[in-house]
Amino acid sequence: MDLQKYIRTIPDFPKQGIMFRDITTLLKDEKAFAETIDIFYHHYKNKNITKVVGIESRGFIIGAALAYRLGCGFVPIRKPNKLPAETIKKEYELEYGTDSIEIHKDAVQPNERILIHDDLLATGGTIAAACSLLQQLKAEIVGLSFIIELSFLNPRKRLGNYEIFSLIQYNAE
Amino acid sequence: MDLQKYIRTIPDFPKQGIMFRDITTLLKDEKAFAETIDIFYHHYKNKNITKVVGIESRGFIIGAALAYRLGCGFVPIRKPNKLPAETIKKEYELEYGTDSIEIHKDAVQPNERILIHDDLLATGGTIAAACSLLQQLKAEIVGLSFIIELSFLNPRKRLGNYEIFSLIQYNAE
Repeated sequence: MDLQKYIRTIPDFPKQGIMFRDITTLLKDEKAFAETIDIFYHHYKNKNITKVVGIESRGFIIGAALAYRLGCGFVPIRKPNKLPAETIKKEYELEYGTDSIEIHKDAVQPNERILIHDDLLATGGTIAAACSLLQQLKAEIVGLSFIIELSFLNPRKRLGNYEIFSLIQYNAE
Repeated sequence: MDLQKYIRTIPDFPKQGIMFRDITTLLKDEKAFAETIDIFYHHYKNKNITKVVGIESRGFIIGAALAYRLGCGFVPIRKPNKLPAETIKKEYELEYGTDSIEIHKDAVQPNERILIHDDLLATGGTIAAACSLLQQLKAEIVGLSFIIELSFLNPRKRLGNYEIFSLIQYNAE
């Protein structure tokens, strides 16, 4: 199944010059959606993952379904001031300005084996911040998974030695 | 399994006087998380659901895992200006002011059998707006599902004859 055919490209969203890769056309197709989860499942099933961490908000979709398939718990990383209990926060740089993400301090225990999922790997800024949060909690990051990787932005350069698995790569904008 | 024991209550979040019901403690427990999905699955498995619609962003978590379990597609309802293609929008009232949600116009076809999921049923304003969007798309709303229902707010009063299924009810704040 060619999953890339289920991705819809929308020019100039959210702003001029951006080719937005829309995953909703993949998610709504029951076969493409199931195959996406199954491919991730087969990649990670023997890695003793204890929790899947999904990044708000599109990362919740595949992240949660994959956690269920793997028999793991699910942990959300969210935008600031959304999580109600005690959190740790990490700031990261955007093209203009900064943003930050949070995780509950008690979301994972030391040495838990974590898979982090987001829908899109672009420059890698968000996922690097997520890795930093999990490291602060002394978790073991087993892998980073994405539906789409924008290879032409060279995101792997800043992600060191983490195991990275993406289903669909775009080599040019 | 008493799922209510996995809900953490946090007083005065996000503001004074609110008892916030935190589902992250349920989601991170692999047994409670799986049982949550399985209970919904058994409730809906014979209802020929074609798509599960989840409401941003906590509704994505159980909604997507349940869509996978049911073998359906998943459709997100999102905050304004997040969905990249053509949308329809519905405004709804908050305690102070208004908010709105959107769905892609091509997210569901007429007569599709839809389950709408959100984590929390409080006053019912958001879910009523979601129902209105699905009705505009001429879908058939088979059910509305929630992890938590704040029964003391009487949300069912405004939701007419929809089939409503919630796992945990709070009869007082």
